[in-house]
Amino acid sequence: MTKDPLVVFTPSGKRGHFAAGTPVLTAARQLGVDLDSVCGGRGICSKCQITPAYGEFPKHGLSVDEQALSDWNAVEQRYDDKRGLKPGRRLGCQATIQGDVVIDVPPESQVHKQVIRKAASARKIIMDPATRLYFVEVEEPDMHSPTGDLERLERALREQWDIPAIQADLTLLSKLQSVLRKGKWQVTVALYKDHTDAPALVTDIWPGLHESGLYGLAIDLGSTTIAAHLTDLESGAVVESSGLMNPQIRFGEDLMSRVSYVMMNPGGHTEMTDVVREAINDLTVSIAQDAGIDATLIVETVVVCNPVMHHLLLGLDPVELGQAPFALATSGSMFLGADDMGLTQMNPRARIYILPCIAGHVGADAAAVALSEEPGKSKDLVLIVDVGTNAEILLGNTEQVLACSSPTGPAFEGAQISSGQRAAPGAIERIEIDPVSKTPRFRVIGSDLWSDEEGFDLATATSGITGICGSGIIEAVAEMRMAGLLDESGLIGSAEQTGTVRCEADGRTHSYLIHDASADGGPRITVTQGDIRAIQLAKAALYAGARLLMDKIGVEHVDRVVLAGAFGSHISTKHAMVLGMIPDVELDKVTSAGNAAGTGARIALCNVASRAEIERVVHEITKVETAIEPRFQEHFVNASAIPNSVDKFPILTGIVPLPAVKFNTGGGDGDRPRRRRRG
Amino acid sequence: MTKDPLVVFTPSGKRGHFAAGTPVLTAARQLGVDLDSVCGGRGICSKCQITPAYGEFPKHGLSVDEQALSDWNAVEQRYDDKRGLKPGRRLGCQATIQGDVVIDVPPESQVHKQVIRKAASARKIIMDPATRLYFVEVEEPDMHSPTGDLERLERALREQWDIPAIQADLTLLSKLQSVLRKGKWQVTVALYKDHTDAPALVTDIWPGLHESGLYGLAIDLGSTTIAAHLTDLESGAVVESSGLMNPQIRFGEDLMSRVSYVMMNPGGHTEMTDVVREAINDLTVSIAQDAGIDATLIVETVVVCNPVMHHLLLGLDPVELGQAPFALATSGSMFLGADDMGLTQMNPRARIYILPCIAGHVGADAAAVALSEEPGKSKDLVLIVDVGTNAEILLGNTEQVLACSSPTGPAFEGAQISSGQRAAPGAIERIEIDPVSKTPRFRVIGSDLWSDEEGFDLATATSGITGICGSGIIEAVAEMRMAGLLDESGLIGSAEQTGTVRCEADGRTHSYLIHDASADGGPRITVTQGDIRAIQLAKAALYAGARLLMDKIGVEHVDRVVLAGAFGSHISTKHAMVLGMIPDVELDKVTSAGNAAGTGARIALCNVASRAEIERVVHEITKVETAIEPRFQEHFVNASAIPNSVDKFPILTGIVPLPAVKFNTGGGDGDRPRRRRRG
Repeated sequence: MTKDPLVVFTPSGKRGHFAAGTPVLTAARQLGVDLDSVCGGRGICSKCQITPAYGEFPKHGLSVDEQALSDWNAVEQRYDDKRGLKPGRRLGCQATIQGDVVIDVPPESQVHKQVIRKAASARKIIMDPATRLYFVEVEEPDMHSPTGDLERLERALREQWDIPAIQADLTLLSKLQSVLRKGKWQVTVALYKDHTDAPALVTDIWPGLHESGLYGLAIDLGSTTIAAHLTDLESGAVVESSGLMNPQIRFGEDLMSRVSYVMMNPGGHTEMTDVVREAINDLTVSIAQDAGIDATLIVETVVVCNPVMHHLLLGLDPVELGQAPFALATSGSMFLGADDMGLTQMNPRARIYILPCIAGHVGADAAAVALSEEPGKSKDLVLIVDVGTNAEILLGNTEQVLACSSPTGPAFEGAQISSGQRAAPGAIERIEIDPVSKTPRFRVIGSDLWSDEEGFDLATATSGITGICGSGIIEAVAEMRMAGLLDESGLIGSAEQTGTVRCEADGRTHSYLIHDASADGGPRITVTQGDIRAIQLAKAALYAGARLLMDKIGVEHVDRVVLAGAFGSHISTKHAMVLGMIPDVELDKVTSAGNAAGTGARIALCNVASRAEIERVVHEITKVETAIEPRFQEHFVNASAIPNSVDKFPILTGIVPLPAVKFNTGGGDGDRPRRRRRG
Repeated sequence: MTKDPLVVFTPSGKRGHFAAGTPVLTAARQLGVDLDSVCGGRGICSKCQITPAYGEFPKHGLSVDEQALSDWNAVEQRYDDKRGLKPGRRLGCQATIQGDVVIDVPPESQVHKQVIRKAASARKIIMDPATRLYFVEVEEPDMHSPTGDLERLERALREQWDIPAIQADLTLLSKLQSVLRKGKWQVTVALYKDHTDAPALVTDIWPGLHESGLYGLAIDLGSTTIAAHLTDLESGAVVESSGLMNPQIRFGEDLMSRVSYVMMNPGGHTEMTDVVREAINDLTVSIAQDAGIDATLIVETVVVCNPVMHHLLLGLDPVELGQAPFALATSGSMFLGADDMGLTQMNPRARIYILPCIAGHVGADAAAVALSEEPGKSKDLVLIVDVGTNAEILLGNTEQVLACSSPTGPAFEGAQISSGQRAAPGAIERIEIDPVSKTPRFRVIGSDLWSDEEGFDLATATSGITGICGSGIIEAVAEMRMAGLLDESGLIGSAEQTGTVRCEADGRTHSYLIHDASADGGPRITVTQGDIRAIQLAKAALYAGARLLMDKIGVEHVDRVVLAGAFGSHISTKHAMVLGMIPDVELDKVTSAGNAAGTGARIALCNVASRAEIERVVHEITKVETAIEPRFQEHFVNASAIPNSVDKFPILTGIVPLPAVKFNTGGGDGDRPRRRRRG
């Protein structure tokens, strides 16, 4: 008796014997090989492309000849004519096994693709989204055995895809009958099945094979900006990113101002809810347009945000979050429909998932950072700082993870800074000040040239030089300190004291001139004493939060620091350390994680198991409430100077000790940093 | 060692020994005695009232003295002062066991009360609604162990009531925080937990103890009328019933006309959806007003209806139901929220349950009849006919149950009848015609007097005599036949042929005058040839449906007949049999079940397990589609005469054989019964 042919799949290495004539797709399924198929082997979706390998495979003990698979067939030819198959590719549902063979499953044919992330240390994202496409053939109605169209669809999904049960809302039901008939009883359904016990939900249905894909939005809803990443739910690729200012800013720059607005105007939160939902709707339309897709293909959205934004997005009164004990209406993750939230521009049945909050001041954004950066899996003690209007701070390792938030205010995002602006073309993002001449040079977003390099004027002609963004102001302040224009207390010296006319009198204090285009009708970009104070407050809050967590664990040093946040990744770590934004650590132990909260949202969007994971992890995080910790106040007061210690400089490779200058001023109360209201 | 006191509960007979000092409520819970409590034994809800019995109980072997329970305490005194306790009553959570005792649980203290139904044969309704009240004490928020208010409510329900998990929507969340604080962390929640695996849903929350009860609506949505029963979800009592005409009538009298309207006006179903939802909203407001309750206390609604009304209520295009193979969009039961259906006048989080449909022409109303009348539990072969614009017909016994629907048209509801009207005060509901003088006498709704009795004019002065309702027209036609005014084919004789001037010429046919108030400006109430034809069509359709099911089983006779329908219960069984509406059976084997569909809705409202039952039962019912059965046409044609057979008369006790009259007419095509379009 001859043995059945041996099939070896790569890269998985899974192998087995199959009777001659078995389709490759069938063999793959039986072995649990990750080979995609939307149409279930009907030869129409082309997701199951494989590459047979011919020749000698001593490793597998195989010799494979050209007869190992059945001949190229008409279905494959039709697909090749219509769309083109890459050379050497076959359709796994058409090619049948005829002899021993080695079959490679290319990455794009795998369901659980791995999404590439830039940072080497970053966790991998394995594609396993909650929403997937299923092509099914539905039985036609039979008068003699009457059942509803939905019930026959459910049965088809059970029989053809092992889906035990489905649910559909009225809007889906109202299109079901016409789509089934238009597709001649062959349809593609998008099914949402999350990590809970809830039955799969039909989010959409199309006649025949749906080939336009499915998309999800990962939204990082910040106090100041809203960032969205349009993600292909099959490949995991971010096909478009876009952002806009949070329109709630007109109700208050920081969170506490917005809570105060509601305290002063009971019920006023609904206005803020309306504008932020409208902004997400606008963002949905524009991002779909930019990507060239139909916005109704957006079938899922994951939102991460801080607790106040969480409540304001959901239409919940945030006043309890403005006063001790800072009680959230709900801290659990949220499962909603787009229609529940007035998100009218995506698929009407799109599912919305909002990550759980950790505490009244530590929100779903911090949870998302934890999901992305996994402090609980770190062997060394890692401090993760998500810099924004409200900073989320996590400290931990495999033994414990602590979290708090700190009200840094919007200065780091360029707000409340005299020449501040969003990070956009024309904004100064990097600055160097010559310690001898006290002359600045800078770079603006949109050009790689420094302002003293040839071609700079031409390169910035279109955008102009319009202001300073968050990373620019941090570098400016740090460089001013290093150039001796600023003393330890944060006071800007006069022209006489500093020896440069760029330090101009400005009321009772001084400003430092960075760029003057006023002769051409352009702006005069300066750093004022008020700007310095805003940055001092922000960085002191950030530092105090981090120190508080270190106190709780009982350590004086952390092993490494991760800077996160849409803006965190643009901060020069050297300048951040000069400013004293973060505790002292070797410079090469400071890394940037990019928008970790946004990445956490993307992970939750692409991998449904990660939702269960973060729901578990948030319960294991120890929450620290900065607002009621006396030590936070203490650290905050001590942290406003630049620097508060000279001990750090040996570890700041390449940085000379800061000048020990001390300026006098005739100024009164107005020039000292004051604690900002919590927000 | 002395034995612990023995406690015997009546009426359950459950008994056990309990340590002295055990509260009666605790003992009842441990024994599984059905004793209510909303507050969980805190002495504030007074639901756990019991009556201790003192004296000698030889049956239980007990002698009970006055010291068997602890003394009347301050909590009981406070409740008695405030609300009054019935003599002999104690609060089960306050009175503790001190010695052997017999304790009676009065019906109103039982959770699973039995609701009294009038008909002796009717199934009992045991109260076990999906929505119940729970009083809980919620832990206050703690900054050091931050969790959301919802999560603490969930924990309280788990710890105090063994509810494993809850869900709440955004509208509930948006009131949660203020209610918890207003109630000083003591609240009553209404929880909806149905027969599925879905977690309990918080439908409402009130500060402190909620004492205004919970209500549900049982709605029988017919083609012609909408009937609603406001039901107390605690006692099961129908506190108010109300009805109105289905406003969709303006789009078509019968179902097929409405489907045709959509065929002619694609998308036109949404107009019909809007008006029927608006009508339910109006009905909700008026029924709550009449009952003197806040409409937001209506937290559940069960709807039964035929398939076309089902689709039109849900906003689904019904055109598929107008053509073979009559495919429903969905045949399963529906679980919806009031907001999904535009039902804006009840609690915004009210849950809507719609019974499953049996087939494209046999709807949730037929399922409700099956739930109420339980043909599958009948040992003898029972024919159940739910008379309406569309008749639902069930035939079966413990071995099998068959179902079909038959398009009777609205004649039985008084529509399409020249002097027809709804059953309302002033409508003629009973008629007798003297076989000798051919003079009618009648009764109108609102009075027990016959028109030839003294005081009739006075009794009907307010309502007037306005028309004939469905039961009246059936009696009129049957009486006319018995009085020899009508021949076997259904033709009304002339004055000469019948010997009474009441048979007036009316175009080419004749009418019979029942009441003439035209001298006083009142109506002239007659039965026209057209009326006779409408009734003939209706009764032939009904009869043909029943016969078709009998053919399927292969029987010539049924053991008993149940007439159902809002109007079915008012039909005189004798007259129905004379007309040939139903197959021949002994008169005393014909019973009336009242509005069985409405009762089915009430059962599903009051007892959540019955929902699982009917979902199972509908799968066991054999569906017969009258529209495609040639034998249905055959039976229909044969059944239009009155009567089609004289064989039946021996069993019609007290009815003399019908006159064998045959009238001639000069009339053309217009006077013969024609098959109505399906509807």
